[in-house]
This record gives sequence, structure tokens and C-alpha cells, in this order.
Amino acid sequence: MPKATHFTTIEQLEADNTKLHENGCSACAETYEDRLKTQTPHCKFGEDGICCRNCSMGPCRITPKGQRGICGADAHAIAGRNYLRAIASGTSSHSDHARELLHILRGTKPEGPYTVKDEVKLIELATEWGVATEGRGIYDIAHEVAELGLQEFGKADGFQRLVSRAPQERQDVWAKEGIMPRAIDREVVTAMHMTHMGNTADAEYLVRQGLRTGLSNGWGGSMLGTLVTDIMFGTPSVWTTEANLGVLEKDMVNVVVHGHDPAFSEILVDACEDKSVVEYCRSKGIKGINVVGLCCTANEIAMRHGTRMAGNFLQQENVILTGVCDMMCVDIQCIFPALATLADCFHTKFVTSSPIARIPGAIHVEFHPDTAFEQAKELVRSAIDNYANRIEDKIFIPEAKQKATVGYPTEQIIRHLDNVSNSHVASETLGGYRGVIDAVKSGVLRGAVAMVGCNNPRVRPDYSHHEIMRELLKNDILVVASGCSAQVAAKAGLANKDAKYICGSGLRRVCELLDIPPILHMGACVDISRMLLLAAGISEDWGIPMTQIPVVGCAPEWMSEKAVSIANYVVSSGLDVYLGIEPQVKGSSQMMELITEGTKKIVGAGFVINTDPHELVKSIIDGIEAKRAFLGI
Amino acid sequence: MPKATHFTTIEQLEADNTKLHENGCSACAETYEDRLKTQTPHCKFGEDGICCRNCSMGPCRITPKGQRGICGADAHAIAGRNYLRAIASGTSSHSDHARELLHILRGTKPEGPYTVKDEVKLIELATEWGVATEGRGIYDIAHEVAELGLQEFGKADGFQRLVSRAPQERQDVWAKEGIMPRAIDREVVTAMHMTHMGNTADAEYLVRQGLRTGLSNGWGGSMLGTLVTDIMFGTPSVWTTEANLGVLEKDMVNVVVHGHDPAFSEILVDACEDKSVVEYCRSKGIKGINVVGLCCTANEIAMRHGTRMAGNFLQQENVILTGVCDMMCVDIQCIFPALATLADCFHTKFVTSSPIARIPGAIHVEFHPDTAFEQAKELVRSAIDNYANRIEDKIFIPEAKQKATVGYPTEQIIRHLDNVSNSHVASETLGGYRGVIDAVKSGVLRGAVAMVGCNNPRVRPDYSHHEIMRELLKNDILVVASGCSAQVAAKAGLANKDAKYICGSGLRRVCELLDIPPILHMGACVDISRMLLLAAGISEDWGIPMTQIPVVGCAPEWMSEKAVSIANYVVSSGLDVYLGIEPQVKGSSQMMELITEGTKKIVGAGFVINTDPHELVKSIIDGIEAKRAFLGI
Repeated sequence: MPKATHFTTIEQLEADNTKLHENGCSACAETYEDRLKTQTPHCKFGEDGICCRNCSMGPCRITPKGQRGICGADAHAIAGRNYLRAIASGTSSHSDHARELLHILRGTKPEGPYTVKDEVKLIELATEWGVATEGRGIYDIAHEVAELGLQEFGKADGFQRLVSRAPQERQDVWAKEGIMPRAIDREVVTAMHMTHMGNTADAEYLVRQGLRTGLSNGWGGSMLGTLVTDIMFGTPSVWTTEANLGVLEKDMVNVVVHGHDPAFSEILVDACEDKSVVEYCRSKGIKGINVVGLCCTANEIAMRHGTRMAGNFLQQENVILTGVCDMMCVDIQCIFPALATLADCFHTKFVTSSPIARIPGAIHVEFHPDTAFEQAKELVRSAIDNYANRIEDKIFIPEAKQKATVGYPTEQIIRHLDNVSNSHVASETLGGYRGVIDAVKSGVLRGAVAMVGCNNPRVRPDYSHHEIMRELLKNDILVVASGCSAQVAAKAGLANKDAKYICGSGLRRVCELLDIPPILHMGACVDISRMLLLAAGISEDWGIPMTQIPVVGCAPEWMSEKAVSIANYVVSSGLDVYLGIEPQVKGSSQMMELITEGTKKIVGAGFVINTDPHELVKSIIDGIEAKRAFLGI
Repeated sequence: MPKATHFTTIEQLEADNTKLHENGCSACAETYEDRLKTQTPHCKFGEDGICCRNCSMGPCRITPKGQRGICGADAHAIAGRNYLRAIASGTSSHSDHARELLHILRGTKPEGPYTVKDEVKLIELATEWGVATEGRGIYDIAHEVAELGLQEFGKADGFQRLVSRAPQERQDVWAKEGIMPRAIDREVVTAMHMTHMGNTADAEYLVRQGLRTGLSNGWGGSMLGTLVTDIMFGTPSVWTTEANLGVLEKDMVNVVVHGHDPAFSEILVDACEDKSVVEYCRSKGIKGINVVGLCCTANEIAMRHGTRMAGNFLQQENVILTGVCDMMCVDIQCIFPALATLADCFHTKFVTSSPIARIPGAIHVEFHPDTAFEQAKELVRSAIDNYANRIEDKIFIPEAKQKATVGYPTEQIIRHLDNVSNSHVASETLGGYRGVIDAVKSGVLRGAVAMVGCNNPRVRPDYSHHEIMRELLKNDILVVASGCSAQVAAKAGLANKDAKYICGSGLRRVCELLDIPPILHMGACVDISRMLLLAAGISEDWGIPMTQIPVVGCAPEWMSEKAVSIANYVVSSGLDVYLGIEPQVKGSSQMMELITEGTKKIVGAGFVINTDPHELVKSIIDGIEAKRAFLGI
């Protein structure tokens, strides 16, 4: 049996990173660490959110002598507007991701390349939306569901259909507070309108629209994205895979897929297994094709194919720095524009595929659903051709990698709970979260934390995730993780079943009983919608509001505007969110009060902010214990 | 006959402004001039567009030592993203404005408060959209048209319906270049997605999406806004009214309506004429109610009721500084948050009415279409009550005002042309622009300029508009004007028929023949869509592409993000746009090239930028003459 010491430390990750950086320097490559040095110290006005560029009278900024912009907007209006625009952009990104998938779902056909893989999930959604299913072909149903899904973005009336999945108490709060989300695109446009020069200057209403726009993402765009991905590519299940740069292979063609939208990466994975492509590879005398994921694409394909994960956000340059990345194919979001120039320092072919993310210097192959498979095969062949161009001197693959057991959507969690319940409790408790609720009530588990979000060089990358997760496990707090956070767990060896050895005795018992790792990998950042459904399910099975369950969210190193949108829908859903990076509103006392305390009065939850991970995890544990105390458990 | 010298100079406007500012200082009030001093010099990074705040790794800024942000985004990516976000916000604002009106149109009923006033225009639009009209009630048709209009914001497929009003050549260019506008909200969301961290870094594609998003405004949101406003409140016709602060009355209750969305201001104007309200006013011993407009609301109501115009954007504080503004009711856009605190220094009741524009310190009366008239009457009564609270010492009303003949939508221009044609040409030329085209061809008129946009303290406010307009008139160039620019013309006396005396002999002859002023007031900023239709009509009647007609746009003092959106749809429509304020992309050579020359390759027109109004007008005249030379006229 492996020992509790079989983990990769942050120091080891950092040592590999340093070596890669040196490798890069010798290849004249620049990385984010170099650029970070030239970008610090950051502009304080921007950091504090009190710089306004929303009209050409300015830019204006709040200073001791200038307490208002030219129009009269004060720090609160300016910081609030900037904050709301971040939510608008984050919501736009997740919603557009889902929209593209819905367009593809509308074009699915039995002969592919895109098909319906999870018919049960499709039928469930169709039934929920009142789409006739009896006696109809599955593709007929899929197309109608897609059409309805597309309406969620632009319908003139009504609210997001999927809010009906939230507990009634939440729906009532949202209705009462006027933040029930309408069409997703409309919420974005409303946000952009409110923040235009000469509109809303009252921070409270900017924050309220932030909650609403966030909700249109969490219980709208993101949830649609996850559902449609499951329907087309299959609901994830458990896979044991590996994570970290060590998954790159010296003697194989390394094809790295990076980004967020699984539509193209799914096809690329298929293409790498295509017989003719594999034969082409062998004809060149190469052992095989090694397709690996990066960033959230890694999460998507690991959960559905067991594909190995090369790294998270801040490792994207490292993958190229190894000198063995023969091709990197990217789609959308979180893609460093720096990759194009970096790839030029090596032999890597850097390929963009989306009109949303054009990057100068990249090879652009615009992905079209109908021709996706042919395009993908062509690209992989070109990667194979590129293998011969590697520069031996520049090759360095860090050895570190860890086994990770991934793929825990809510369905999988329930399956594990049912397996246990089956053996010793009555069948009426099957299909729900009673088992885990009982464990929490009894104190065997103290609660659960959703670890989410990016990594960020504002702090020591990955470190906060790592420290917080280990401390939570030690304190019998189950962790569900997604996005870059889930990959920290995987890289460190914490998404491995053996990680039970570093858990408190209660959590360890739960892991053994359920046969799960203590950190459950739930997917990509868009899949935080799975966490919403998990928390909603626990709330409903427990019979208490979401605000009362001892479950919180934590984004210790969030970086993107998507994260700001996510944080808003998680808070709106009644779960406190613990942030390790300060939202850029510090220059406004009102905004700081609103996002930490003010939203509690609206939706019953708020942000807790602390840039020290040890203090942050302490406040998480205190927060969970306070919720337990309130419940008298 | 009045003399050519009967004009108000910029110096006179400025003298009044100075006196008002002194008046304000003695009342402890702060105005934009004071805040401007504390906000200059502006941040150079913001001015140049090379500061990025789109993720929390930053903010980053481009400096000699830091040529790329942490992610690798360079000056071109950063400036391009900021620029596209401005267009997204501007488009959102105009489109939301139209959406609100469409919702109201969908609820119109014979008994009001909102009715269909222009049935002909409604039937025309219904017919254009394939809505059955035969034997149907007008409200039935209105509701179906409204429903279709609302779909333009969020439909999953297809392009803006109103692009069919553009010449075929333009439609072909837009289709070929991939910038045909889809649903309005979707274009905004696409723009917000493209500018999210890790997406588009190629300036050209950001500019292309800017053109497309702009088109969804010009041939979408804005045009819908104008159409629906005409349908509900009547297509404007000619009124002679007055403009400038002198329209405020010492011995009347002054109710000032300010903003953009005419829905509430229309009702407020009605309420001021309501018998019971007028009687209530008289019962207080007050002479009467003086309702006047400010900013684009002034344009909207002047064109439909002849209501007098108190001022444009930068005069909004001045209205309160007079000490006789008993109530200012605002709706959306370009409303200084400073007004609330400024109103506190006087007796003015400052009332916000839209959830889009909440301002701390304001009295908020949320306007609901069903109860609008009751709400409006209540507000006017409260303004009447407030008359007694004026503080005599603080009162100063500048005397200056000018007569202005306003209200020249395309229909009105054609009517004038037809009146002349009727008397001496064949009837087949009626209903079009042949008369004006002939005048241009013959050289009697050299061309036309659409003067648009805000005023802006970056330059001497109103001065650039004024200087450019006078010079254009002198050079036989007809001016059509909207928004704050139109009000400069009105305040200066240039929207008066007597202004023909300062025109070149050709333009003067045209003015006399058509019985028009040399500057035609076409409406609010949303009505720039009227100018598109005017230019499209000239292009079609002439039989040459829009890029070739000697017509250009000029926004010498643009300020808002709406203006950036507008400039993009005007350029996309093939008309060069002359800007007197630099777009905030100066830090990127690529962006500067793209917006001035690059778009010429895509849509055949671009920006010409010059902050000196005399140089700018010279380049306009040169540009028009070059177009004439190309045509051989």
C-alpha cells in the first residue's frame, strides 16, 4: 500500500518550473515570470478599481484631491461599474461556450461527427422542458432541446428555465430581490448599459445586477454548457489518469489540447486514435501519439476519456518549454497570446481554431463542426510530421507526475453513495445525498468545500490551493474541485485515493467506505454548475436552505473575469465564497462592504477575503463550524 | 429681415457659463470644471488604451520596459480589446433603449397611456417584415411588430432584419467580410467574450467585431429605437422652438427632462399640459409650467412638440445652477451622477426613473408604463410645490437663447424636396433625393456632413462643433445634425432659417428654395439611424455606392462609448468619420492604422482624426472635394 508521503510538493513543482524557465532562457524564450517583473508594481488605481475609462472625458481616477471623476462618479460608482463589467465578460464567456455547443447539438446526427452519447440525460432534460419524447427519434428530440436551449440566451420574456433546479427557497429569494435571471445575453447587455457613462452610479444596484448576471451564468449558460457537453460527449465517470508535465512523452508525438470548449478537443482525441493516423505515425517510425490536455480542456477530456493532464493555467508555457510539444491546439479562453511567439522559439506548431480567439503568429485552422474530424486528422498528421523538427538540446521533460482518480459529476457521487446505502440502508434513501448528510450531521465529515478557480502569479502559484486543500482534508472536510484547482489536487497526488492517508480519521473513513479520493474532481470551470446541483441536492435532501448547509466555495487564486461571474452565482446560491485574491474594488469602502456583508442581506451569503492561505483556510473551517453550530450539529 | 449677425457666439456661451459657475461656487456647488482640474493630467496609459484590467493577474500596461502584459498581450491586443468593449457598451446602451420601447409598443392600447400615433409608419414596417395587416386592428399589428422587433435582440439565427434597408452593395460587403450583424445582444456578448483574458489578441479581428457590433446598433438597435419612437410618439415634423438656458423661466415652474429614452419624457410633457395639473399650478399663484428638455431628451421632444431645449450634455449642471430648476427628471445615459449632490445645493428635486440609472441621493420614482401618466402628474405637482422653495439669492438665468427650426427626419427632407420638385419637375422624381443629388452634381451644393456626437471638456466645449459647422456652411456644404451637435447649432442660431446669411451662395440658394435652415436637426443620438437612411437613399437614387457619395460624418467632440459604436456603424456604412477627439488606442500603431486605413480595405471608409477643429474641417472639405473629383463632378 502506498505511503502517505507519496505526494508532489509545491517545492518540487517549483523546482521543475525553474528548470523549465532556464531551459526557456537558453532558447531566448520569454515567459510570464519575465513579464511579471516588468509589470510590477501594478497600477494602484487599477488594483483598487478606482480608475474609470468608460468615456473619453477621462480616464479619471480617484485620488485624495480628486474624489470624483469629471462626471461626478465617485469611487463606489467607478469600482462598482468595473466590477459589473468583469461579471458581464465572465458571463459572456461561459454563455458563448454553451451557445456554440447548443448549435452543434442542433446539428447532431447518427453518423456524426457529433452524436448524442447520453440519451438518458437528453430525455431527462427534454422532459423537464416539456419536450415530447414518446415515439420520437433521439435526434429529433436533441434538435428541439437545442432550439429551446438557444432561446435561453435571447428570449424576450421570462427567466432562465434551469432555475427550477434550484431549491424553492432560492427561487423565492431571487424573485423577491429582483435578481431572477432573464435571458443570458440580456443580462450582459443590461450590465453593459448600466455601466455606460451617465447611468448607474449607486454601487448597490451594480452589485445586484452582478448577482443577477452571475445567476444567468450559473443557472443558465454554465449549466447549459455542462448539460450539453454531457449529452453529446457522455456524462463523465471515474477514470484513473495521470497529471503534470511528466505525462509528456519523449518518444511519442505530443499533441496538447488547450482551452475550454470540448467540441474540438473531443474530436482531436478521436483523431489521435484514428487507425489511419496511428498508422501514419508508425510509418514515420514513431512509437505513437500522446494526446494530453491543458487547462480546462484537460479536465473535460480526462473525465470522459481518462486522457492525461499536462497542467493547469500557469503551466501552459511550460508545456512548450519542454521542447517536446509537437502541436498545441487551442480553442477559447485563458490562452496566453504569448504562446505564439514562444512556440516560435521551439518547433511547436501552435494552432488556433476559434474565431473568438485569434492570436497573431498562430496557425489558424477554423474549426467547423461538419468537417471537424477531417480537420483534426489533418492537424494530427501535421503534428506527426513536426516530430522530426524537435531540437534535441532544448528538450527537458520534468519527471514529476501523479496518479489521479477523476470524474465525479453528481451522478457519480450519488452512485458511490448508493453503492454503500444498498448494502445497509433502506432503498428510499437511494439516489440522493442522505449518506453524506448523515456523515456531516454525525460529525464524521465536518462539511465540504468547493475548491475552484485559476492560479495566479499575484500569489505563489498553486501554493494556496495546495495548502488549503491539505488543511481541509486534515480537518475532515471533503473537497470537491474543478478547473485549475482540481489540477493542483491531481498534480500533488491529492486526487488519488491514497490521499486518504493525510485526511482526518472521519474523512478517511468516508473515503474508504465510498471508495473515493478525498478530493473529488468534478470537471472544468464551466462545471461549477455541477457543484451548484450538488449543493442544491444536499439542501433539498437535508430540508434546510442552501445558506445553512456547511458547504462553501473557495477560489484562492482566481484570475479571470469568469471567476468573478462564478463567485457571484455561488454567493447568489447561498454559499459563502472565500477568496485569496482581492477583487479589484478595494478603493471603494461601499463596494467592499457590499460584496462581503451587503450581499448577505440580499442572498444570505458573501465573500470572505484573505490573501494568506493559512488564514483563509482557518476562516473557512471557522465558517463551516459556525454553520454547524447554527444547526446544532 | 434679421441680420446675419444675429448669432450667439461661443464666447457669449462661455461668459454665461462662467457666471453660472461663479453662482455655483457661491452656493458651495462643484461642477465638472472643478473636477476636471483635479483629474488632469489624465493617465497616459488609459488615454492611449494600453492599460489592461481584464484579469486579476494585472492590471498591466505597456511601457518601454514592459512591451507585453503578463499573459503576453501586446499594445495592439490591449488597445483593441478596450476599444471593442467600448463599442459593446455603446451598442448595449442604444439597443437597450430600443428594447424598452419595444416592450412598451407591445403593450400599447387605444386608451393609452401609450398608443400608436404613426399608423402609416407601423404599417410600412409591418409590411416590410411580412406581418399581415389586411383587416387587422392597428394594435394587433403593433403587438406583432413589437414581438418581431424584440427577437432582433436575441434570435439564435439570422441577421438584423433592417439591414435590408441598406443598399445591396453594402449588404454584399458585410456578408463578404463576415460582419453582417446577428442578434444585437449576441454581438455584444461575442465582443465581451473575445475580449476576455486569453481570447482574441489580434487587433484586426477585434476591429472587425467592432464593425459588426456597431452595425447591430446602427442597422439594428438604434434604427429600431427611432422607428418605434416614431410609431408611438409620431414621426417628427418641423417646429420652431428656442434653445439655450434662456428658455428657463423665472416666474414659471421649470420642469427639466433629461436623458435619452423618450417614453417617460413624452408622458411628462403631457402631464405638464394636463388640466388638473395646470390648475393646481395656478392655484398656487404661479403663472404656469415650463417644461424644457436637456441633452438628447431635448431633441426628442423638441422634434415632436416644439418643446424648448435648455442645453446639451455639458450644460446639465448649468440648468441646476440657474437656481430655477424646480425639478429635473432623468431617465438613462449621459446623466452626471454629480447632479444629485448639486441639486442638494439648490432647491432642485432630482428624480431618477430607470432601474438602469440609479444615482445615490436622487429621488427614485421607478417609471412603469401602465402608471406613467399618474406618476408623471404626481411628479409635476411635486415640482409645483417645490417652486416656493427657490432661494432668491441663488437665481441667475442667462438671457441667451436662439430661435431654432428643428425636426427634419428623412420624411420631412423628402417633403421639402417634393414641394420644390412639384412645381417644376416631373412627378417620377418625387419621394426621393433627386433634387438634392442634382444640386450636389451641379456643384450648387458641394456635399453634406452629418454632425453628431457629444461635447467634451477635453477640448473647448461646443467650439469645435461651432467652428466646423460655420465653415461647412460657408463652403456650401449642407449639415445634418443630431444629438449635442444639433443643439450647438440651435444655441448658436445656426439651426435657424436666417443662418442662410452666413452660407455660401449655393447653400443659401438651396435653403431659400427648400425653405429650410442650412443645418437640419434630425434628432437625438439614436436618430443617427435616420442619417444612415438618408445616405442610403441618396446612394440608391444616385446609383453609386455609399462610399462614393460626397457625404461624411463628423463627431468633433465625441465623449461616450455610444459614439464609438456609432462611429463604427457609420464607417461600416461606407462613410468616413472625422473625429476631433482621439480614440483611446493611440498606444497601438496597429490599431491607429486599422481604424484610419485598415477599415477602408474592409468597408471602404475610415476615421480621420484631428483635434484642431480648423484643420479637421479643412480635411472634411478636402475629403468631400476628393469624392467629387472621383465622381468627376
